[in-house]
Amino acid sequence: MRARGGVIRERVRTLLERVASGEVAPERALDELARAPIETLDFATIDHHRGIRQGFPEVIFGAGKSPAQVVEIAGRLIERGERALITRADAAALGAIHVRWPNARLNEVAGTAFVPEPLDPRPEAGPVLVVTAGTSDLPVAEEAAETLFAASVCVERLTDVGVAGIHRLLARCEALQRAKVIIVVAGMDGALPSVVGGLIACPVIAVPTSVGYGASFGGLAALLTMLNSCAAGVTVVNIDNGFGAAMAAARFVKA
Amino acid sequence: MRARGGVIRERVRTLLERVASGEVAPERALDELARAPIETLDFATIDHHRGIRQGFPEVIFGAGKSPAQVVEIAGRLIERGERALITRADAAALGAIHVRWPNARLNEVAGTAFVPEPLDPRPEAGPVLVVTAGTSDLPVAEEAAETLFAASVCVERLTDVGVAGIHRLLARCEALQRAKVIIVVAGMDGALPSVVGGLIACPVIAVPTSVGYGASFGGLAALLTMLNSCAAGVTVVNIDNGFGAAMAAARFVKA
Amino acid sequence: MRARGGVIRERVRTLLERVASGEVAPERALDELARAPIETLDFATIDHHRGIRQGFPEVIFGAGKSPAQVVEIAGRLIERGERALITRADAAALGAIHVRWPNARLNEVAGTAFVPEPLDPRPEAGPVLVVTAGTSDLPVAEEAAETLFAASVCVERLTDVGVAGIHRLLARCEALQRAKVIIVVAGMDGALPSVVGGLIACPVIAVPTSVGYGASFGGLAALLTMLNSCAAGVTVVNIDNGFGAAMAAARFVKA
Amino acid sequence: MRARGGVIRERVRTLLERVASGEVAPERALDELARAPIETLDFATIDHHRGIRQGFPEVIFGAGKSPAQVVEIAGRLIERGERALITRADAAALGAIHVRWPNARLNEVAGTAFVPEPLDPRPEAGPVLVVTAGTSDLPVAEEAAETLFAASVCVERLTDVGVAGIHRLLARCEALQRAKVIIVVAGMDGALPSVVGGLIACPVIAVPTSVGYGASFGGLAALLTMLNSCAAGVTVVNIDNGFGAAMAAARFVKA
Amino acid sequence: MRARGGVIRERVRTLLERVASGEVAPERALDELARAPIETLDFATIDHHRGIRQGFPEVIFGAGKSPAQVVEIAGRLIERGERALITRADAAALGAIHVRWPNARLNEVAGTAFVPEPLDPRPEAGPVLVVTAGTSDLPVAEEAAETLFAASVCVERLTDVGVAGIHRLLARCEALQRAKVIIVVAGMDGALPSVVGGLIACPVIAVPTSVGYGASFGGLAALLTMLNSCAAGVTVVNIDNGFGAAMAAARFVKA
Amino acid sequence: MRARGGVIRERVRTLLERVASGEVAPERALDELARAPIETLDFATIDHHRGIRQGFPEVIFGAGKSPAQVVEIAGRLIERGERALITRADAAALGAIHVRWPNARLNEVAGTAFVPEPLDPRPEAGPVLVVTAGTSDLPVAEEAAETLFAASVCVERLTDVGVAGIHRLLARCEALQRAKVIIVVAGMDGALPSVVGGLIACPVIAVPTSVGYGASFGGLAALLTMLNSCAAGVTVVNIDNGFGAAMAAARFVKA
Amino acid sequence: MRARGGVIRERVRTLLERVASGEVAPERALDELARAPIETLDFATIDHHRGIRQGFPEVIFGAGKSPAQVVEIAGRLIERGERALITRADAAALGAIHVRWPNARLNEVAGTAFVPEPLDPRPEAGPVLVVTAGTSDLPVAEEAAETLFAASVCVERLTDVGVAGIHRLLARCEALQRAKVIIVVAGMDGALPSVVGGLIACPVIAVPTSVGYGASFGGLAALLTMLNSCAAGVTVVNIDNGFGAAMAAARFVKA
Amino acid sequence: MRARGGVIRERVRTLLERVASGEVAPERALDELARAPIETLDFATIDHHRGIRQGFPEVIFGAGKSPAQVVEIAGRLIERGERALITRADAAALGAIHVRWPNARLNEVAGTAFVPEPLDPRPEAGPVLVVTAGTSDLPVAEEAAETLFAASVCVERLTDVGVAGIHRLLARCEALQRAKVIIVVAGMDGALPSVVGGLIACPVIAVPTSVGYGASFGGLAALLTMLNSCAAGVTVVNIDNGFGAAMAAARFVKA
Repeated sequence: MRARGGVIRERVRTLLERVASGEVAPERALDELARAPIETLDFATIDHHRGIRQGFPEVIFGAGKSPAQVVEIAGRLIERGERALITRADAAALGAIHVRWPNARLNEVAGTAFVPEPLDPRPEAGPVLVVTAGTSDLPVAEEAAETLFAASVCVERLTDVGVAGIHRLLARCEALQRAKVIIVVAGMDGALPSVVGGLIACPVIAVPTSVGYGASFGGLAALLTMLNSCAAGVTVVNIDNGFGAAMAAARFVKA
Repeated sequence: MRARGGVIRERVRTLLERVASGEVAPERALDELARAPIETLDFATIDHHRGIRQGFPEVIFGAGKSPAQVVEIAGRLIERGERALITRADAAALGAIHVRWPNARLNEVAGTAFVPEPLDPRPEAGPVLVVTAGTSDLPVAEEAAETLFAASVCVERLTDVGVAGIHRLLARCEALQRAKVIIVVAGMDGALPSVVGGLIACPVIAVPTSVGYGASFGGLAALLTMLNSCAAGVTVVNIDNGFGAAMAAARFVKA
Repeated sequence: MRARGGVIRERVRTLLERVASGEVAPERALDELARAPIETLDFATIDHHRGIRQGFPEVIFGAGKSPAQVVEIAGRLIERGERALITRADAAALGAIHVRWPNARLNEVAGTAFVPEPLDPRPEAGPVLVVTAGTSDLPVAEEAAETLFAASVCVERLTDVGVAGIHRLLARCEALQRAKVIIVVAGMDGALPSVVGGLIACPVIAVPTSVGYGASFGGLAALLTMLNSCAAGVTVVNIDNGFGAAMAAARFVKA
Repeated sequence: MRARGGVIRERVRTLLERVASGEVAPERALDELARAPIETLDFATIDHHRGIRQGFPEVIFGAGKSPAQVVEIAGRLIERGERALITRADAAALGAIHVRWPNARLNEVAGTAFVPEPLDPRPEAGPVLVVTAGTSDLPVAEEAAETLFAASVCVERLTDVGVAGIHRLLARCEALQRAKVIIVVAGMDGALPSVVGGLIACPVIAVPTSVGYGASFGGLAALLTMLNSCAAGVTVVNIDNGFGAAMAAARFVKA
Repeated sequence: MRARGGVIRERVRTLLERVASGEVAPERALDELARAPIETLDFATIDHHRGIRQGFPEVIFGAGKSPAQVVEIAGRLIERGERALITRADAAALGAIHVRWPNARLNEVAGTAFVPEPLDPRPEAGPVLVVTAGTSDLPVAEEAAETLFAASVCVERLTDVGVAGIHRLLARCEALQRAKVIIVVAGMDGALPSVVGGLIACPVIAVPTSVGYGASFGGLAALLTMLNSCAAGVTVVNIDNGFGAAMAAARFVKA
Repeated sequence: MRARGGVIRERVRTLLERVASGEVAPERALDELARAPIETLDFATIDHHRGIRQGFPEVIFGAGKSPAQVVEIAGRLIERGERALITRADAAALGAIHVRWPNARLNEVAGTAFVPEPLDPRPEAGPVLVVTAGTSDLPVAEEAAETLFAASVCVERLTDVGVAGIHRLLARCEALQRAKVIIVVAGMDGALPSVVGGLIACPVIAVPTSVGYGASFGGLAALLTMLNSCAAGVTVVNIDNGFGAAMAAARFVKA
Repeated sequence: MRARGGVIRERVRTLLERVASGEVAPERALDELARAPIETLDFATIDHHRGIRQGFPEVIFGAGKSPAQVVEIAGRLIERGERALITRADAAALGAIHVRWPNARLNEVAGTAFVPEPLDPRPEAGPVLVVTAGTSDLPVAEEAAETLFAASVCVERLTDVGVAGIHRLLARCEALQRAKVIIVVAGMDGALPSVVGGLIACPVIAVPTSVGYGASFGGLAALLTMLNSCAAGVTVVNIDNGFGAAMAAARFVKA
Repeated sequence: MRARGGVIRERVRTLLERVASGEVAPERALDELARAPIETLDFATIDHHRGIRQGFPEVIFGAGKSPAQVVEIAGRLIERGERALITRADAAALGAIHVRWPNARLNEVAGTAFVPEPLDPRPEAGPVLVVTAGTSDLPVAEEAAETLFAASVCVERLTDVGVAGIHRLLARCEALQRAKVIIVVAGMDGALPSVVGGLIACPVIAVPTSVGYGASFGGLAALLTMLNSCAAGVTVVNIDNGFGAAMAAARFVKA
């Protein structure tokens, strides 16, 4: 913590030097330091967060926000010199974003936007492979892929390779083996991560989706399947949480 | 229904002939017939049941019964000339059965006994293939297999071919293709029936087991997985219900 | 698997013959074969699928798709010479289908369409009897019936014979006995499959529906009832899954 | 309430007469009355309870109590001149009761005892018919029957008439029609009350039992079935609550 | 069953007399009788239903039906000389009913209509007291009350007497004591039936409502409360099932 | 209870004096008193309620009511000289309130209105600190704050201090320590009350919110977290129940 | 936080004075301070904890620990000069405690012990009233009472006043009104807190217990009832958590 | 897949060369190849598994196995030259293992054994930090630590740093920052992973434990908390699944 906390360390060093030189009385320095610990922690923690989000834009959760609100919040971030990833944005919000920032990267399937424009290309971490069981799982998979893009992580995709047609997956072993981390997105029976986790030794992050009906109970069935995966070492994130899976993958490829 | 109800039909015919001959007054015949309909139905339905259980022994659910009770109930059935399949029998009950009927067919893994002795071999229906994901699922799979044996249905087995090592299943495609019906027994993630149902066109009956811990919730996770199978036309029975799966398979191969 | 995999077998045979004749060097044949195994499996599996879906059209799950999308997807399939069954289609989608393919078979209760036109009549498998407990269960029952029609399986119907008026069911025993497979569709208490399964020896597939309110919990009550059926050998599919029940029945009558 | 509250009414009347006669000053009477309202209510309510339990003994819930505790509590009640119904008593408790009160009425299946001895026979209310789906439901059914006996209500029994063999129930329509109230006890699929409620017009009280395994979830499946009964006007009590069903029936036949 | 089945008995008697007179050959009579049993049962059961619904109109469940459909179904029943109770009707349906049958009895709170006009007054059964915990429970309570009216049962009401202001209930003891059956309608904590059941000895039918939010889980909380009522002999119906509670009460007051 | 029940005590005293003076016969006084107890209780209980709601306005639950209904109910209360707090009011209702009572206190985030105008400032109880984990929890937090305002309790706020950035909370320890009661509002993982309860010794009331998606199950996840808080002595209210949390806090600061 | 952190403040002051005097170089002081912030926080937080547990002993959760383990852990605390409250101790553990500390305060119903001996009497906070619905709820209520005793809070008890006999509660209004905080312990229907919360204005803490069977689901029914209490401002703790309720009450009476 | 599949590639190459040389006829080679694809896949997949388990011993799940069975299975593995990790072993099994392999590494808290003896030390991957919220979570944490040891991954531990005493965690930031992967083990409220995930940027794997009672529902509460973590990128494994968390961590540090 201290190694990174250079700013605060410098400030305290200066204070101590002023005490040593007699410029500041010990009692006044004491008062100043009394407010310091939390502040120190504060800066340090922000530092950590920077560690977590290295090169990562701010995130705006678009659900429940009007297009005007989304544009306003993003605008303020951009004024501060930041980029923003907007998730769970509906068509109206994406339209408003396009009008305001014509160069923004929009993904209608994912419901995401990256503003004010995509990052310049640069050597990237990864690849992270995003695998989907069925085409209905695409919105969640694309949310993961766009989040990884925003984190400057290289993404590959493997779509519609659910276990009911197992040959489709087996035919793509090379893509599986090339990945540093695999995100597996599946609804209904949620069985795909067990098969992938059994085939491949890299980290596998399973994302249950709410795709299905009846006793899928909004993704609960797939969630339980994945938590009980018979392939050792598969981890799970919340239902439909493509963003969270991407952030977990980013923790790995950037660690 | 009537076609099979020969006994009752004969009884009513006799009554009517006695009315025609004046031997029985219409009013008295009326009273007798008033009690008949249900009786008719009764015989007919028993007939149906015979249809369902053609060559099938009586079933004694051993759970919660003492060894003495199990032996006594089985003994009474045998005195009436019947055979009995005992399920959910613990070691003590199996021991008591062995003492009483040394020729009984015992299966300690399944917790079943077939008394007083196995049926003579004869041309059988099937084969029904009983597939298990892991060795912990064997008790349920063996209960299914023994029930099929008791129903004179030919059984084959495929063990420990869970989806985390998918190649083990793929290597056994011939056995899968030979089956008339496949019973797939799996706990934990319950993913195996989806893969089997996608590979093979015959009826697939999925049996969730209570194998697992934590969020398997006593088999609920596997049950939901199977109900949401992405392989079309997979059907499901209750958790740990090897007996029920076998009876469902028997309905098919004997239909 | 190999028996059916004639195409790939022929291809490999040709390759080997060219190796034997010196036309192809062993090393180059090795490279070609290195890509073959999965491909082989791929063709074989497609073959299996053909086995499962013999004479069965492609299926388009209409829920969440616009009428335009449904028509476009179906159109592309038809261009490839296939037929399509569209399920979970709303009135608008059915209207758009009717405009495009005036000869399509539409079922508004089921929310299904069969395009571009029904199959010519031919000797069919079956009959499969679709039984409903109440009139509110009809959409699910009709989805099952239309799916069976699309699979060229003969269907019979028995409607509104719930257990609260048990005589209505008993009066129709002949229809029950004629069936090769019975699909029983019921919401609310889901009790009907237990009664049917006790009367009749053929395979019985139970479909819980989300009909009901309060503690029916969207069909959970009926689902649990059916999984716990006291009639041995009843199997269950997902809530409202008329399509799945029909596919299961088709597995039986075509096996 | 007042009509029954004779004791307290007399006490207040005496007080008022002493006020009228000048024996008690109004202010002192006021103080006395200030404490009276609740006391009045108290006596009155006890009176109600007597109304509810007319001729009904005290009830001791035996679960979690040692044989010695059960005997001691019952002994104290008997010393006060009361009779007691002990429910959920295990074999040891029943043994201890038998030693202490040799004339007690014991029911080992129900796990109940009625001490110190059965009531003399007298004209009784009823009959209440206790119907069970399977023999495993008998302990709950017998608890209901013994509770009714303790309430001097006439009981009839109909056992093992579950819906998977519907003819067994139909053959006993006369017993069904004779009943003033029918208690239907069923586990597993819990389907029997729907059939009974559709056949018969009298009050039907459904008791789900924890009989079953897997997805019966300790009686939850049967409970939900009964709450969703498609027979109008069936009411339900808690799982395994034979005592409660009997008390509900007693409310009916004694009202 | 036979006592009531006069019509069918007469038909069989006539047949037997024609056999006795030689008019009909025994064999032909046999064929005719072979179809009779179910028919007999059929008529008998309809007879039962008549018993259950003595003086009760047909019921149309309005939920999910258009105003036009409701009016059409009701119209057909009225043409056959019947009356109809429509439940779960929305404002549009009630409006359409009013236009068609201006004398119909409408209850907008209950969402019910009684067509074509109310029954003439006559001596009625009851009274049944319908008690509600809060004003939000009124729609369910009114559904119960209108159903009782349609069954010619006298109804009284006690509104907004929830347990958080227990004095409101205690102040109305006379109404409670006058009732033959009490229906208690409560959402949120569902505690009211326990208090009422402890005060009063008559049958108490508890109706949980979906009133509440958060952890009320659509009425589940109130349902569980009522099933676990510490007042012995309280019975429960499904969530929001005012109709079912009224039918249960009618079973009692008409038994 | 009696100490407060001055009105009824005076009435009974007058009655007794009239008995003493011979003006009223004992028997007639008895009849009058027979109706008194409940009435006494009634007044007393209203008195209690006054204790609970000292200075607290009437509450109108706006959900499910039209703007016109809300205005009408509030208007009648105001005519009686009362103030009203309206909760769960949508934008339309707030608009209608503003038109009718321009001085009303409106809070659009909370969905509350206080009519006809805010109370004059006066020395207040508190402070109660309302802490929120994220900005999405604000509507519930503001409902709590407005309810406290209506109860004349002083409120402070601490917003967006969720545990994923723990330093934000630690930096605000002074506000935490100043509070008499802390209400902690959190959705998603609901972890914040555990941290606050571990830091601070005052009463902590946790409010789970329905903020989140997937396996948050409408706030169930946060609710369970809070009930299982590892900080001893944290108490919990219903999901989204800002009103209830404020009332609980008011019970404390006014006790 | 700083006001309490006297020890660390003195240490930093000394360090700064040594910097001012040249005794310690600024750089070395910087290194020392770099470790200080957390340490400061650490001491401060322990200080908070002391605030929370003013006069409160250490707590040993006895469940899952052997008698020997419990005695050993308690012994080590006592050696450090502390007292200990042991909760969830079984009879064997209580016996071992009694042997080791004959003056310990034991409560067999609660399963608690207070070692090495009770505190001397002193003026206490409170009273807190612990109310139980039934005698089966006593273990939880006694755990609450013993915890309050250990926290030097005065306790009163009101036992067996469940809502099915509401008069028993109403007769004890004085005890209810005297309390500063009321803890209401109830299983089964969990209805009692709603009644108490409606009668009394002080803080009411509800404790659901696992008392009950069937659909009480281990206390879930009572928990949901309490969370949905129609009495405003009732708060809830975990099932069977008498300890937690007492700690919450202590937060109130000591704040 | 091919790159690794050297053995099979060589075998096919040899076959092709024998075809080229005329030693083997094309038809016979075809037959041999027909069996090859799966075999190829088989070897390849085993290869994968070797990748997953590089240096990892076989795993024996000890739950439900007798000490004799555990020793026998382990013995057979050791005879084949392998090492074995035994998990979920009780005291009896550990005793039997110690007798047989005195040099085995036993961990009684974890219930694990590593046979026949620990691996020689060597440069290891990691460190993985295993953090526990409370001492009751230690068995699960130790299972994770022992599994990591068996995988030759370096482990550090941080114990009893739950969020109710947040300073304990903050004081150990250095250990948190040093870790390559952090496994966070917590029961009850399961809040710790959210705090850790907010502080640190490396991969965080959350393990809910079944520690707790009442509404912890066997770890469900902690599981849901973790799935809904407000710290982005936290992943979750099954309840009590220390083994799975370690395998997931091993996938990360070895990838």
